[in-house]
Amino acid sequence: MKNPFKFKWLLWLIPLVLGLAFTNQSCSSSPQKASALSGDAASAVYVAPGEYDEFYAFLSGGFSGQVSVYGLPSGRLLKVIPVFSQDAEKGYGYNEETKPMLNTSFGFIPWDDAHHPELSQTKGETDGRWLFINGNNTPRVARIDLTTFETAEIIEIPNSGGNHSSPFTTENTEYVVAGTRFGVPVPQQDVAINTYAENFRGAQTFIKVDPDNGEMNIEFQVLLPAFDYDLAHSGKGKSHGWTFFTSYNTEEKSTLLEVNASQNDKDYIAAINWKKAEEYIAQGKFQEVPANYAHNVLNEKTHSATTKMQDKVRVLIPSECPGLVYFLPTPKSPHGVDVDPTGEYIVGNGKLSADLTVHSFTKVLEAIENKSFETEIEGIPVLKYEEIVAGIVEKPGLGPLHTEFDDKGNAYTTFFISSEVVKWKVGTWEVLDRAPCYYSVGHLMIPGGDSGKPDGKYMVALNKITKDRYLPTGPELNHSAQLYDISGDKMKLLLDFPTIGEPHYAQGILASKIVPNSKKFYPLEENEHPYAAKGEKFTKVERTSSNEVHVYATTIRSHFAPDNIEGIKVGDKVYFHVTNLEQDWDTPHGFAVMGARTAELLIMPGQTETMIWEPQKVGVYPFYCTDFCSALHQEMQGYIRVSPSTSNMPMKWSLGEDEFTQ
Amino acid sequence: MKNPFKFKWLLWLIPLVLGLAFTNQSCSSSPQKASALSGDAASAVYVAPGEYDEFYAFLSGGFSGQVSVYGLPSGRLLKVIPVFSQDAEKGYGYNEETKPMLNTSFGFIPWDDAHHPELSQTKGETDGRWLFINGNNTPRVARIDLTTFETAEIIEIPNSGGNHSSPFTTENTEYVVAGTRFGVPVPQQDVAINTYAENFRGAQTFIKVDPDNGEMNIEFQVLLPAFDYDLAHSGKGKSHGWTFFTSYNTEEKSTLLEVNASQNDKDYIAAINWKKAEEYIAQGKFQEVPANYAHNVLNEKTHSATTKMQDKVRVLIPSECPGLVYFLPTPKSPHGVDVDPTGEYIVGNGKLSADLTVHSFTKVLEAIENKSFETEIEGIPVLKYEEIVAGIVEKPGLGPLHTEFDDKGNAYTTFFISSEVVKWKVGTWEVLDRAPCYYSVGHLMIPGGDSGKPDGKYMVALNKITKDRYLPTGPELNHSAQLYDISGDKMKLLLDFPTIGEPHYAQGILASKIVPNSKKFYPLEENEHPYAAKGEKFTKVERTSSNEVHVYATTIRSHFAPDNIEGIKVGDKVYFHVTNLEQDWDTPHGFAVMGARTAELLIMPGQTETMIWEPQKVGVYPFYCTDFCSALHQEMQGYIRVSPSTSNMPMKWSLGEDEFTQ
Repeated sequence: MKNPFKFKWLLWLIPLVLGLAFTNQSCSSSPQKASALSGDAASAVYVAPGEYDEFYAFLSGGFSGQVSVYGLPSGRLLKVIPVFSQDAEKGYGYNEETKPMLNTSFGFIPWDDAHHPELSQTKGETDGRWLFINGNNTPRVARIDLTTFETAEIIEIPNSGGNHSSPFTTENTEYVVAGTRFGVPVPQQDVAINTYAENFRGAQTFIKVDPDNGEMNIEFQVLLPAFDYDLAHSGKGKSHGWTFFTSYNTEEKSTLLEVNASQNDKDYIAAINWKKAEEYIAQGKFQEVPANYAHNVLNEKTHSATTKMQDKVRVLIPSECPGLVYFLPTPKSPHGVDVDPTGEYIVGNGKLSADLTVHSFTKVLEAIENKSFETEIEGIPVLKYEEIVAGIVEKPGLGPLHTEFDDKGNAYTTFFISSEVVKWKVGTWEVLDRAPCYYSVGHLMIPGGDSGKPDGKYMVALNKITKDRYLPTGPELNHSAQLYDISGDKMKLLLDFPTIGEPHYAQGILASKIVPNSKKFYPLEENEHPYAAKGEKFTKVERTSSNEVHVYATTIRSHFAPDNIEGIKVGDKVYFHVTNLEQDWDTPHGFAVMGARTAELLIMPGQTETMIWEPQKVGVYPFYCTDFCSALHQEMQGYIRVSPSTSNMPMKWSLGEDEFTQ
Repeated sequence: MKNPFKFKWLLWLIPLVLGLAFTNQSCSSSPQKASALSGDAASAVYVAPGEYDEFYAFLSGGFSGQVSVYGLPSGRLLKVIPVFSQDAEKGYGYNEETKPMLNTSFGFIPWDDAHHPELSQTKGETDGRWLFINGNNTPRVARIDLTTFETAEIIEIPNSGGNHSSPFTTENTEYVVAGTRFGVPVPQQDVAINTYAENFRGAQTFIKVDPDNGEMNIEFQVLLPAFDYDLAHSGKGKSHGWTFFTSYNTEEKSTLLEVNASQNDKDYIAAINWKKAEEYIAQGKFQEVPANYAHNVLNEKTHSATTKMQDKVRVLIPSECPGLVYFLPTPKSPHGVDVDPTGEYIVGNGKLSADLTVHSFTKVLEAIENKSFETEIEGIPVLKYEEIVAGIVEKPGLGPLHTEFDDKGNAYTTFFISSEVVKWKVGTWEVLDRAPCYYSVGHLMIPGGDSGKPDGKYMVALNKITKDRYLPTGPELNHSAQLYDISGDKMKLLLDFPTIGEPHYAQGILASKIVPNSKKFYPLEENEHPYAAKGEKFTKVERTSSNEVHVYATTIRSHFAPDNIEGIKVGDKVYFHVTNLEQDWDTPHGFAVMGARTAELLIMPGQTETMIWEPQKVGVYPFYCTDFCSALHQEMQGYIRVSPSTSNMPMKWSLGEDEFTQ
């Protein structure tokens, strides 16, 4: 594992330096020099008022922690779905119902870095049921329900650090996987950082997905050496049953990785046979180890999330499980690993390699069969590189990162440093076309482009640098996406559109797979929230203890019931439980009270949401509807009176001339 | 003030019911039925990759609490500027530098409802220096610096509730105003809600703006009866020196306002002569009353905000200040009040009125001169309606809300209930054109359309209902904006685009007024953050007390200095102060550490930002860069070791082979 040529790594700074130079040069191009585009492009991306986009595109928010939903080809932002980060606009992570979604073994965490949206699949094809996405910093995987476009579940991943190679799915969503990018001590312990190679490990996690309701559970983890596992994809067709994880830092260094983790000429793709893992699990060949992690689930009927802490996980040790894991040597610091629609070809995008290496799954099986091993690492056979390579795309560009596929046997690879997408032929490895990106493309997305059934009409380049592409907005710029038409022989740039957060990766799907199941409101009769008021006659205000008050309130165009409340005292903890009685599409109401130290409630029709308000000062405070709901929306307001803590004011509430006391 | 016909209000439910019926009917139109648009519209809104939009549009986020910056005509979202709400993506309201921006007299508040962006003006023309916006729920006004597109200042408004008629500017940004929508007791006190008319007041606040640096200070408040003050605009040209506030609920009711505040046939526009107010202030004819409110300012050099609590405010009482305020009777529950570019015409958009009333400023002055008063309310003369009306636009539509102007003498009024924009001629009051909106338009925006110099090329309708306009996204839909070409005789619908939060109101400006002053990065040599490390040689880790540790760290492509830290203990409070050493555009770095109970840092070039981390468990935790910065971004990581609280581990930090101890 040690490289004898101490300064050889310097060589690898060359492309980096070149890359930076290139990027900076690109930035000097003025907008006027952009290639002139015909009205064809304008018409191709124009979706006339009232007409619909053809595709949904789910872009990760990256460091926003959320998912952004765009329409294609228009590039219009249809919705931001809050996932790992608090969202004051929607009250997500602020109201009592959704706060548990952000619980972890470290407590409540208001943010994460979400990288890879992944659509559920059936028979290798995206099915429009769920969207999964990873939380990178405090390792988690979330599931979004595509009937409601709401986050339905988040599960924490123990024994992991930097949950980056996640949450890629298997062919029928049997599993979503989660590979650790940063080695960590397993279990955590107080050890010197420079004992990394001895004391740290790299766990790969397989999360079982319930085929009926999508619920996730950690089925097992596979404990590998402490390489940095960067990305993953599962096999399909003939390679169904396997999952592939790229690695870098096979040098197992823990400082100055930009230098120290770039020494080895080849790193590895870890190929895990999860069907074999299932056999070992069935045989009891696992270790059950203590692990503390949160599992948060949103109940569809109560519209409330609950957290269950889990306390153990099953771990498989490769040296005890022959045939479970193999290492595929791959040049150099491979970033993405992408499996073609047939399942035969495994592309290792070696980001510091001059060439692009493609492995053959058939050859991998033959090499395993023939025991063509170079060596073994911690009981894991390393296959002979020469025996598994299907082909090489030679000198296609600088800094390959990711590959997706169309439905005509072509592959499209992004090159970060040379800032382009290169189209090549699967099987002949011939470069067919190249398209510049502005600037420094990371992932790319073709709808279904990592599934068994790509839809090869559009490709979206997800770029890391924006600079001069749009009107300036000060030092901070939205990252950029670019839409290409890939239906013809040559890629054709159609549109630049800015994004939310970092558009790290994306998934696309034909709208027709989602629209028929989209929910328009929540039926009130199904609302099982314990504090719901399913009609104005059920509204009330209850003092349940010396300093706890529950307000059961309702909204309907255009008033709250009740809208005058007296009897609250300084020091009280007031729970406003607000039920939106509307039963029509697009009729939310909002709720806010002056001075509350939390976000608003934004309540969808049929839902109940809860805000806690702890009044600090005597007075009469207004509350009002925050979501413009009718011509008399401005009149949708009320008052709540706060008396001194020593007051004997009775609890009293009213609407118009109807007045009640507790 | 009392209406003798007890059930007359029922009449006013008719347009509402009609309106709802209309809205629902509109929604049944299928997208296919949308008017066919030619390729002209596609070309008109298409901004080719690398080319720039012509206008910036600043849309309020409404209940998101933020400002969204769009390009026009493309409708692309260029940036979300966090203002009143925490933004986990940017660390705003989470990092130590920006947390003080959200302080109020009620403590730290993570959210507000932001309605009306308002550009600063010089000689009645937008000047591209600052953008102001109101916080509605816990009354505040924010100022955004348009060289950096960052929130630079937030000031709280005392004696106010629902800061809705805010922050409209005067002709040279002498003031931005803030009128209370909800009456509140002034000062706050424990009184019965049904003593509203006796005990509540409606304060109008004039905030002085420093012409050099934009800094805001509350100059004075004018104490009016407890009507609901809905919107405002200041005079211009001949009416410069006056500000107009609409009111509803002149009935002074406090419950079921949708009925009770819709009784009077006319409500009032309050016309305040602020030049006269300045005279009274100079003469000392004010009361200085105790008031507790926060004033938060971001220092440009330290990149850090500080909060100063203020303790008093100057109040003018109209009965003691003759000539300060007049009431202009206006039918019925007027919503917007809009002053035409000449300053002569004051449009009262009576949302429950069948007609649209326009007052003449000249006639207002004459009526004052002639003492043509109907009556007086709390010492405020009510001008005779007949004597001040310039003209009436008859039966233009249902539910007028707002009017803006073009540069050809035309006005454009939105009608919420009949869901349309109506173009009419200022002076002849003749309806020239009408355009349907999908659905239920609130505000509209023409760049400069509320200033003395409108740019009449585009108009944006800001709609409240979305329903079937885009691909469905479950029960919650992004609100919609619609772009119209208004350069010709007839309005022409060009584009539908979804928005963030509620696009309550907007301001537009020619890009050329902002681009030349846009800042690309923060010069490192100007960084005066007390914990900045302006080079790797200044990085260090200091234990400053038994449980407080300060990490002075830096980022540069692609490593942290230091990247290994040992000597931290459970129970420590670790301050990570991270300085981004880059000095180029679009080169932010991010910082996150596993398990931290806060958001990331997202650090612009030249900036220092601070995260507090309180490690709870022994172990070795990774940290990494969250913003993809180079080809070796994935290698930009480090580790921090946490030892037991009882450990004697010395403080130690390193990068590569360079190792240091405290």
